[in-house]
Amino acid sequence: MTNTQVTHIQIDNYGPWTVTPEPRREVDLQTLQSRLYADLSQLFGNRDGYVFFTRFDNMVAISNGIGIEAHECIQESISNRYPVTMSLGVATGRSPVNALGTATELLQEAGSAQDKHRREILKGRPIDDEFRTDEDVQVAHFDVDNATEKYTDQLNEFDTFINIEQGYAELMQYMRRAHDSLSFFVGGDNIIALCPDLDRDAYRDAVDHVKEAVDVQLKVGVGRGASASDAGMDAKHALEECRAASKTVELDL
Amino acid sequence: MTNTQVTHIQIDNYGPWTVTPEPRREVDLQTLQSRLYADLSQLFGNRDGYVFFTRFDNMVAISNGIGIEAHECIQESISNRYPVTMSLGVATGRSPVNALGTATELLQEAGSAQDKHRREILKGRPIDDEFRTDEDVQVAHFDVDNATEKYTDQLNEFDTFINIEQGYAELMQYMRRAHDSLSFFVGGDNIIALCPDLDRDAYRDAVDHVKEAVDVQLKVGVGRGASASDAGMDAKHALEECRAASKTVELDL
Amino acid sequence: MTNTQVTHIQIDNYGPWTVTPEPRREVDLQTLQSRLYADLSQLFGNRDGYVFFTRFDNMVAISNGIGIEAHECIQESISNRYPVTMSLGVATGRSPVNALGTATELLQEAGSAQDKHRREILKGRPIDDEFRTDEDVQVAHFDVDNATEKYTDQLNEFDTFINIEQGYAELMQYMRRAHDSLSFFVGGDNIIALCPDLDRDAYRDAVDHVKEAVDVQLKVGVGRGASASDAGMDAKHALEECRAASKTVELDL
Amino acid sequence: MTNTQVTHIQIDNYGPWTVTPEPRREVDLQTLQSRLYADLSQLFGNRDGYVFFTRFDNMVAISNGIGIEAHECIQESISNRYPVTMSLGVATGRSPVNALGTATELLQEAGSAQDKHRREILKGRPIDDEFRTDEDVQVAHFDVDNATEKYTDQLNEFDTFINIEQGYAELMQYMRRAHDSLSFFVGGDNIIALCPDLDRDAYRDAVDHVKEAVDVQLKVGVGRGASASDAGMDAKHALEECRAASKTVELDL
Ligand SMILES: Nc1nc2c(ncn2[C@@H]2O[C@H](COP(=O)(O)OP(=O)(O)OP(=O)(O)O)[C@@H](O)[C@H]2O)c(=O)[nH]1
Ligand SMILES: Nc1nc2c(ncn2[C@@H]2O[C@H](COP(=O)(O)OP(=O)(O)OP(=O)(O)O)[C@@H](O)[C@H]2O)c(=O)[nH]1
Ligand SMILES: Nc1nc2c(ncn2[C@@H]2O[C@H](COP(=O)(O)OP(=O)(O)OP(=O)(O)O)[C@@H](O)[C@H]2O)c(=O)[nH]1
Ligand SMILES: Nc1nc2c(ncn2[C@@H]2O[C@H](COP(=O)(O)OP(=O)(O)OP(=O)(O)O)[C@@H](O)[C@H]2O)c(=O)[nH]1
Ligand SMILES: [Ca+2]
Ligand SMILES: [Ca+2]
Ligand SMILES: [Ca+2]
Ligand SMILES: [Ca+2]
Repeated sequence: MTNTQVTHIQIDNYGPWTVTPEPRREVDLQTLQSRLYADLSQLFGNRDGYVFFTRFDNMVAISNGIGIEAHECIQESISNRYPVTMSLGVATGRSPVNALGTATELLQEAGSAQDKHRREILKGRPIDDEFRTDEDVQVAHFDVDNATEKYTDQLNEFDTFINIEQGYAELMQYMRRAHDSLSFFVGGDNIIALCPDLDRDAYRDAVDHVKEAVDVQLKVGVGRGASASDAGMDAKHALEECRAASKTVELDL
Repeated sequence: MTNTQVTHIQIDNYGPWTVTPEPRREVDLQTLQSRLYADLSQLFGNRDGYVFFTRFDNMVAISNGIGIEAHECIQESISNRYPVTMSLGVATGRSPVNALGTATELLQEAGSAQDKHRREILKGRPIDDEFRTDEDVQVAHFDVDNATEKYTDQLNEFDTFINIEQGYAELMQYMRRAHDSLSFFVGGDNIIALCPDLDRDAYRDAVDHVKEAVDVQLKVGVGRGASASDAGMDAKHALEECRAASKTVELDL
Repeated sequence: MTNTQVTHIQIDNYGPWTVTPEPRREVDLQTLQSRLYADLSQLFGNRDGYVFFTRFDNMVAISNGIGIEAHECIQESISNRYPVTMSLGVATGRSPVNALGTATELLQEAGSAQDKHRREILKGRPIDDEFRTDEDVQVAHFDVDNATEKYTDQLNEFDTFINIEQGYAELMQYMRRAHDSLSFFVGGDNIIALCPDLDRDAYRDAVDHVKEAVDVQLKVGVGRGASASDAGMDAKHALEECRAASKTVELDL
Repeated sequence: MTNTQVTHIQIDNYGPWTVTPEPRREVDLQTLQSRLYADLSQLFGNRDGYVFFTRFDNMVAISNGIGIEAHECIQESISNRYPVTMSLGVATGRSPVNALGTATELLQEAGSAQDKHRREILKGRPIDDEFRTDEDVQVAHFDVDNATEKYTDQLNEFDTFINIEQGYAELMQYMRRAHDSLSFFVGGDNIIALCPDLDRDAYRDAVDHVKEAVDVQLKVGVGRGASASDAGMDAKHALEECRAASKTVELDL
């Protein structure tokens, strides 16, 4: 059984900051946002977590193995280096969706995302070390078949992007609805999903659904581990196995 | 009349690199991709351009005012600092879609995105300075009304994201189909579109379409200028005018 | 008694790379070097280590508590994100100078810094966890008295720099010679020294020496701990105590 | 005749910030400082300037060709992305030392570096475009002969560093005193000097002086141009010519 720990990362009162006193240069905002994400990727990644950029002002991390003290340290490191601060909600659950629901609520209870007096909240309960197991995190790494040949080398880049985006939008909504999973676009034609304890049929079902709904052919490798990095690396190897053996679903559990 | 110059940025042979000799750590890939984007944002931004992350391995820039020599300099600066190189296609057109179509073709003609012998292509023709005008670039900055109150402070972050994403997916496809425009998600609840010479009715039509199709209420500020940064900053001021006066569409042309 | 673990970090074959095929733009080299240092600071820092930039192509880290696997991970993370690779030598010793001597030898035995076939060496023996103690690392944080009033607000920036630099050069050589310590400039008017088990008199002696030799008045806070970050933070608090109580030497051991 | 434009960059009220409310983690300060420097290198570098890290809280740029508006833009970009702000003094002169003297005075007149009410000063007069010439900037690129064989591959890294540092300290002070030049360590065994209109004899004199004083053998390539990047690249090519032809001084004027 999975036991997912997620962290909801929210930049404090960011909307007003972007336009005070005047709208700030978009290229600087883009630089700020993508570097903040890069830094969080390293800060969580060095502790075996994964971060997804989601909307950039709100991000989601798989944080199994990362305690409250490490969260504090990450929060402080960002405030030492950026003009903005961030709040963190940490929660766990059998299903990733429930875990995130609780994590978000912790922030919402502390005040609005645009409450200028709510700053650097850190709330929640990580999993105690003694209760962690090698089955806590299940990660699926989805990839579009032959994206280069079918899209990138054929269409203009925006139309390629529309195809990939449709595949992602369909998968992301279906996995949320049918399988309580959180799916994130990670660049190129790749999507990483944080899942509960799903079996081969569930993944096949999802891949079939996307193929039928928007005619995008996916394959998927699935891994499991005590942390995001363990589960995620297994998923990558399983995906390579899909490539090598022309399979659509490969589980490395 | 607009005269848009776009640059298609493509990391060379990136897919194979990510899995050679073994799949590389996802957090490092995320860091690499988002920093590359941040650096390109600054490299183009310091020359009044905008870059959009699109799929991260393929990016799109509005590059009016940026000549071939500056493109060369940007290409070299990246290869001096990253383990990957990138190819650039530059083209112009009355419509952004056509411009991008040409830019992408320049790369495709030089070889596949995953051809390991195709490296650091730089092809295309920027607009000569004497032909540049203050009407060359039209940028629309879309934003979701009250996203904080309606979504961020109410739903779990993933469900908020689904709503924003649906708004984006609908707008992006509609603007492409109906108005030859390229729309890019830039974080939070914001979308920036690169447009041909559209009028107020076109923007109202797009906002109405999204509202009907997926029940997401947008507002939009539109700007125009000789470069992305001029047009984009005007668009931001127009959007602030929407906020101040509770308007849905504001053109600052 | 201290038991210092140091890591010698050396970019592989960097000199030739900077001029192949043509000399590379200096601003890109500066960006590359300072970002590499920033990333190493975070990679070691997230594991309670300190890194000093030294010559940028060769850096020195205090790495108590950081095992071989973590070193591997750091080495891989850099090669995933930079156009250059680096070799690492890890060693321990009662005196920092001896530890570094061994660490450097491990690299030298594996080949020249400019041997193009020597890449990503990782050699050495970290301290086993069971042998680590709270007295392993001793760090001294030196600071120039009243640098702002005496120099920054009076002289042109270069002449200020000459004064600070003379203080640093004198201290660094004296601490090396008289007290087997490694002293690194960390910006502003601050110097951090990695020391063996020195007492108050040794620090007073060093401060007096610098005052006499080049007329720069220092103060110093000293800390001790199982890791660089513990010892270093104690040293900072001790230095604040110097400021508060107008002392010249403060030990927090 | 040279006509050097320099910019003195000073982080506002940085000392107090580093210890408020508590001393901040050193690794975060190091990351902040080196990234700020990397960003300034790019911001000035994209406009053909050079920046030297000097003390990190105070930096010096060669800014020929960079007007007040571009300085404003750089200042704003940093304040959009960092928790600290910076002040800029811009001045010109036949001699680099005089130019810097004036630039620093502009900041000093506006208040102390640690005056908490003095923020984001921007003062000074860049050279008007019509008065710029190809002889404005003279840059010398010094390098230690055979540093790898003589030091890096022989001594422990700290003792190598002491040797390089002594060469630098001697050169820097001598060039300041005897030749009104500003010399900056740029990593490895390289030093870049910003010079007035010096001839071959002056450089030979400086190299000889360092050899006699501290027994470090330098070579030097010298370039000239309308901007730092032009002069600096010429200097690099001249240095390569020294390498190829075993010369000690090479001028490419
Ligand atoms: N985030 C992430 N992106 C990846 C990874 N591997 C590949 N990609 C992205 O996927 C893009 C396409 O590469 P591939 O999937 O290898 O190419 P393809 O043409 O679809 O080929 P097949 O998937 O083998 O059918 C690349 O440009 C990358 O952006 C990965 O491990 N992580
Ligand atoms: N890229 C970008 N994102 C922005 C900008 N302004 C706001 N955002 C994003 O939009 C998010 C929501 O902020 P707002 O749009 O101000 O909030 P809101 O609740 O929707 O309020 P209204 O738009 O005023 O109705 C912020 O967290 C940012 O991520 C901008 O100029 N550029
Ligand atoms: N690396 C580092 N640099 C620091 C730290 N604290 C201060 N500095 C640097 O030191 C410079 C001078 O600041 P202070 O030492 O506070 O100023 P001062 O005028 O010398 O005042 P006193 O030291 O209190 O006499 C700052 O601009 C920083 O560059 C620190 O903790 N770490
Ligand atoms: N900033 C900077 N540093 C450089 C440059 N070229 C070399 N270096 C540094 O100098 C170090 C030593 O390289 P070299 O000078 O090529 O090596 P060497 O053994 O001294 O050989 P020779 O100078 O050819 O006698 C490198 O590790 C770099 O750190 C450059 O263009 N800019
Ligand atoms: Ca694929
Ligand atoms: Ca909004
Ligand atoms: Ca001081
Ligand atoms: Ca050399």
